[in-house]
Amino acid sequence: MQYHVNGFHPGDPRFSDPQDAVVAPPIKRPMPSEVDVLIIGCGPAGLNLAAQLSQFGQIKTAIVDIKDDRLLVGQADGIACRTVEMFQAYGFADQIIQEGYQVNEAAFWKPDAENPEHISRTGKVEDVEEDLSEMPHMIINQARVHDEFLRVMRQGPGKVEPHYQRKFLGLEVNEQDCEYPVTVKLERMVNYSQFNQEIETVKAKYVVGCDGARSGVRTAIGHKLVGDALNQAWGVMDVLLNTDFPDIRLKSLIQSNKEGNMLIIPREGGYMARIYVELDKLKENERVARDQMTPDILIAAANRIIAPFTMDVKDVAWWSVYEIGQRITTAFDDATAERSARVFLAGDACHTHSPKAGQGLNTSVMDTWNLGWKLAHVLTGLAPESLLATYSLERHEYGQALIDFDREWSAMFSAKPKSAEHPEGIDPAEFQRYFKLFGRYTAGVSIQYRPSQAMGSDKYDELATGLKAGLRFHSAKVIRHGDAKPVQLGHCHTANGAYRMYLFAGQQAPMSNDCHVRKLADYLMKDPSSPVHRFTPDGADIDSVIDIRAIFQCHHHALERSQLDPLLTPQKGKFGLKDYEKVYCAPLKKGKDIYDMRGIDRNKGCVIIVRPDQYVAKVLPLDDIQGINAFFEQVLIAQ
Amino acid sequence: MQYHVNGFHPGDPRFSDPQDAVVAPPIKRPMPSEVDVLIIGCGPAGLNLAAQLSQFGQIKTAIVDIKDDRLLVGQADGIACRTVEMFQAYGFADQIIQEGYQVNEAAFWKPDAENPEHISRTGKVEDVEEDLSEMPHMIINQARVHDEFLRVMRQGPGKVEPHYQRKFLGLEVNEQDCEYPVTVKLERMVNYSQFNQEIETVKAKYVVGCDGARSGVRTAIGHKLVGDALNQAWGVMDVLLNTDFPDIRLKSLIQSNKEGNMLIIPREGGYMARIYVELDKLKENERVARDQMTPDILIAAANRIIAPFTMDVKDVAWWSVYEIGQRITTAFDDATAERSARVFLAGDACHTHSPKAGQGLNTSVMDTWNLGWKLAHVLTGLAPESLLATYSLERHEYGQALIDFDREWSAMFSAKPKSAEHPEGIDPAEFQRYFKLFGRYTAGVSIQYRPSQAMGSDKYDELATGLKAGLRFHSAKVIRHGDAKPVQLGHCHTANGAYRMYLFAGQQAPMSNDCHVRKLADYLMKDPSSPVHRFTPDGADIDSVIDIRAIFQCHHHALERSQLDPLLTPQKGKFGLKDYEKVYCAPLKKGKDIYDMRGIDRNKGCVIIVRPDQYVAKVLPLDDIQGINAFFEQVLIAQ
Ligand SMILES: Cc1cc2nc3c(=O)[nH]c(=O)nc-3n(C[C@H](O)[C@H](O)[C@H](O)COP(=O)(O)OP(=O)(O)OC[C@H]3O[C@@H](n4cnc5c(N)ncnc54)[C@H](O)[C@@H]3O)c2cc1C
Ligand SMILES: Cc1cc2nc3c(=O)[nH]c(=O)nc-3n(C[C@H](O)[C@H](O)[C@H](O)COP(=O)(O)OP(=O)(O)OC[C@H]3O[C@@H](n4cnc5c(N)ncnc54)[C@H](O)[C@@H]3O)c2cc1C
Repeated sequence: MQYHVNGFHPGDPRFSDPQDAVVAPPIKRPMPSEVDVLIIGCGPAGLNLAAQLSQFGQIKTAIVDIKDDRLLVGQADGIACRTVEMFQAYGFADQIIQEGYQVNEAAFWKPDAENPEHISRTGKVEDVEEDLSEMPHMIINQARVHDEFLRVMRQGPGKVEPHYQRKFLGLEVNEQDCEYPVTVKLERMVNYSQFNQEIETVKAKYVVGCDGARSGVRTAIGHKLVGDALNQAWGVMDVLLNTDFPDIRLKSLIQSNKEGNMLIIPREGGYMARIYVELDKLKENERVARDQMTPDILIAAANRIIAPFTMDVKDVAWWSVYEIGQRITTAFDDATAERSARVFLAGDACHTHSPKAGQGLNTSVMDTWNLGWKLAHVLTGLAPESLLATYSLERHEYGQALIDFDREWSAMFSAKPKSAEHPEGIDPAEFQRYFKLFGRYTAGVSIQYRPSQAMGSDKYDELATGLKAGLRFHSAKVIRHGDAKPVQLGHCHTANGAYRMYLFAGQQAPMSNDCHVRKLADYLMKDPSSPVHRFTPDGADIDSVIDIRAIFQCHHHALERSQLDPLLTPQKGKFGLKDYEKVYCAPLKKGKDIYDMRGIDRNKGCVIIVRPDQYVAKVLPLDDIQGINAFFEQVLIAQ
Repeated sequence: MQYHVNGFHPGDPRFSDPQDAVVAPPIKRPMPSEVDVLIIGCGPAGLNLAAQLSQFGQIKTAIVDIKDDRLLVGQADGIACRTVEMFQAYGFADQIIQEGYQVNEAAFWKPDAENPEHISRTGKVEDVEEDLSEMPHMIINQARVHDEFLRVMRQGPGKVEPHYQRKFLGLEVNEQDCEYPVTVKLERMVNYSQFNQEIETVKAKYVVGCDGARSGVRTAIGHKLVGDALNQAWGVMDVLLNTDFPDIRLKSLIQSNKEGNMLIIPREGGYMARIYVELDKLKENERVARDQMTPDILIAAANRIIAPFTMDVKDVAWWSVYEIGQRITTAFDDATAERSARVFLAGDACHTHSPKAGQGLNTSVMDTWNLGWKLAHVLTGLAPESLLATYSLERHEYGQALIDFDREWSAMFSAKPKSAEHPEGIDPAEFQRYFKLFGRYTAGVSIQYRPSQAMGSDKYDELATGLKAGLRFHSAKVIRHGDAKPVQLGHCHTANGAYRMYLFAGQQAPMSNDCHVRKLADYLMKDPSSPVHRFTPDGADIDSVIDIRAIFQCHHHALERSQLDPLLTPQKGKFGLKDYEKVYCAPLKKGKDIYDMRGIDRNKGCVIIVRPDQYVAKVLPLDDIQGINAFFEQVLIAQ
């Protein structure tokens, strides 16, 4: 955390407005009639977008939901490593890690060979492969994630609070209205199901439909979810229970012989578990009648599946029949051949997944994580509007890939175990191998965006074999030069909307005249036409659009501050205070350093340009000034 | 974190009352006329005591302060490793670590040999020796620590909120009044210095004077601070600055040739530093006149000391002249030959230290950390009143040792550097060696309480050479059996007032008939006269007074849950839910295991009894049932 740059202020430094740090902010604000961005839906997709936009004081954001208040219980609970990495950017990964359940191992159970009416364990595997992420795979009530987003929204300079009890009715886009082309109609609600006929009209520059699987925004822009016609139905319950099933505190995937499949997800707090019981497949729109299903029926089914063990459920915290197909819209925005997008879809509104791989929440937040900074850059005049087209491009492709993965995984999960009776069935060992193989998918680190306006090619991938263009910047430990602190390099990449440019030094003596980091930093800081100067608005901090960090191969004692001044200690804020956290050294007290871990060329070094959403955009040689300029010219506007 | 044991409740699980988890608690409550414990002073000592007592819903605690409101800025900022360990017990170490500055290295500067008017660096040393603690040495505004204590107080079952604007006037102890022997008079204040003549009378079972160096409670019970007649005066300021001094983000100890000494403590947020400038020694009560001192004078002095470097101070966040002697009262309570103690002193009220070793806040919170559980046990009827006598015994001895250390350290710090001119001076290399040597003191882990009613002897120390009786339980990593999570064993020891009994298994097959852990656990759980049953009140959870944990030497896959049930999966709460977090296995994926790190006898194993304040009370052989009983009979009352 860095703060106090504009003067010391007492209170919680997480508030960007010192006024709020000591007094509680107002909870309700009147609904504005004109906003930059109107977000429909306070699910994880919408809240994440609001959290990202709230980091920009200049952007006016409103977020509405049909509900009476914030979510308190239920829905998704799996938080992939990649999502925790994103939480870190907002500053609340620690809170979620402290509070949640950490998935360490998964246990696999199948019908016992001798006695197939009983299940037996086939094995346990590590849930997250070593060095897949510096963050763990967590399980926690979705509502607690919402709470953290709400806190970030409230505490950010944009100070965004949801407007509840508003139902999205419809929208119109009128490009003639240059300022606020989208007009949205909302209906005030007194209670979840009571309308009071009061219609509010909000005009917006952009509207984002984060209104879930039954999205009204999707309908309003004429999109449809397409794909598999069959819905999978799962009975799901969060329960407090006693059981002699030995792996109740491990994620357990259970295939029974004749009673179906089941998934146990241990939950936060040590006593609760989520239990998924697979129900039959259903035709689209053929909903499982809720009144036919009860928690007792689910508990009885679960007990049949885990025989010879038993489950004694003491309390049902939440339960539902979660019925979902694997479908996706053809595009995630309303762009046409004639005009660029004004309305976007994100999350369940544009793609739905079976719950087994736990991708619903994770993919939804990654959608708006991709969209948020792009909207912010366009709205603040940093980037051309064309950047927005890359949202649908990047996220649609990933959404489709995930559905393909999900389909395979679901089929495998639901298939009968191989046996004499079911020779077509799936071999449990094969299943376990598959689980390991797809660990990168479920961890959320498999996304590799393709080259586009916002993403460079793999031309120089060999300079950093573990940090390829299109992949998220994979963090590793380094020593921060100023305070000798071992830190995760990636953790400097907070959700502030800036690009990072990591200058990894090569073999030359650090900051010597031959040192390419020195030369490049010299050019960037001193040449008024360098991207750092060209693309940073007047009066803004020098690192607010492109934030430069240097990493050297020498021990941190071998480098003196005077060698770095003033290039790598930029002056910021109203006092022009020097920032001492831009320089790192690779050698650790023990273990491999970042050059080894991420395959960085020790001889040549390299530049790694990372987008505001933490995805590597380009790997370049340290002397490729032209290449650096070319990339930024694509995504930023000269100020 | 463990929760939901009595049913699922939405909201922040850190609130023990689910009602409060979703709505804000009331801020002000009327001053009660009768309380169990009345704490005078909302400094760190008082707040920590209130935080500890707030963990007990049955205990009525009030805490008052003369001030208008909570502290916002200034005073101490150094948080020793041991203090962060204690924060972990309250659940807020992560917050402080996230927000604060972490001390990694200290830099030493002395007059340059060639050019003594200029300082030059003699070296950098690691601030915290490896494996001294699993926690870092932190620096953060004392006010933020207060905020966390206030949150814990508010969120705990006792729901304690300070009563501000109350001035302690005096007290009377009347043992005839069996219920509430102490009568305290408080004066309401409208503003910091305006009295409104309104006198409140509060009756209490115990009163704790945490009212700082000028303690009125100390005077009221006739105690005096005694010791060194000289006060040291330090100019201290928290500033935002630019400087070419290279180690501004390291803790820096600077000795100049003729301009005096200075200490730089980097502060939270990346831009602020605390600067201590040593002023002359003063006679007791000869206060430095504030109007003679200004921040400008201090800044000028600092600039003279660090020549040839300069400091350009942009903003002074806080400054003070901190004038303090090294003094201590003869006892920390009002016990007499006739009666046991009713009034206790803690923190600066009974001992004061120079600020250089940063012990003021740390020792103060450790006082009430020692006292809190003892008061709680006596008030809830778990322990005999005689236990309270060990508070003054244990803390006075440590307070004295610290003063001795502080005196040596201060003398060394203030002494002239050795030179031709000052042959009696101190050799900088010697100074650095001393700094290292005293690292255990400054980290707060050097305390070793002596045998007493509440502390066993070192009879069996060879069974665990790294976990000796009297020292704090030194945590190490283990794998939690239930969920395969790598955890710090010591982190199960939260501030809930329970003893921990760690059963480290020996060489026998885990939980086999020969296994001594099994035998001991069997006895403890099954024999109605075992300490676990004898000393736990009816209806309370079986682990609420003595919490048993077992550690095995086998891989966690080599042990099945069914072998542990029901001994080591105790049933708790209103549903009798099983607790799966009592069993650990030593082998880690890599590195030394806890047996190696803490010198535990792999052959015999051992029992380690740890007090509620995390100090090892006794190390015993696994079959020493008599020894276990003997210890608990000293400190607990049969229920
Ligand atoms: C009942 C339920 C159970 C679920 N169970 C699981 C599970 O067990 N496991 C799992 O992995 N995932 C589960 N999910 C899915 C998971 O929660 C979603 O994938 C995730 O929340 C997607 O986030 P989102 O923001 O895209 O949409 P959502 O979280 O669905 O949020 C959409 C929001 O839009 C609001 N909204 C909808 N229509 C309107 C309108 N017309 N006007 C205003 N506001 C509107 C809704 O009230 C809602 O708050 C469940 C979802 C639901 C709804
Ligand atoms: C101005 C100041 C500057 C300091 N600077 C440093 C520093 O630079 N470095 C360092 O290490 N330590 C410093 N300290 C010391 C450090 O803050 C203390 O060691 C630490 O706070 C001790 O905690 P405590 O709870 O024992 O007492 P304190 O923190 O002193 O708290 C005592 C509380 O009791 C209240 N009180 C006093 N008298 C009455 C009364 N009659 N009625 C009601 N309430 C009363 C006070 O208002 C205060 O809130 C400073 C202390 C002060 C006061």
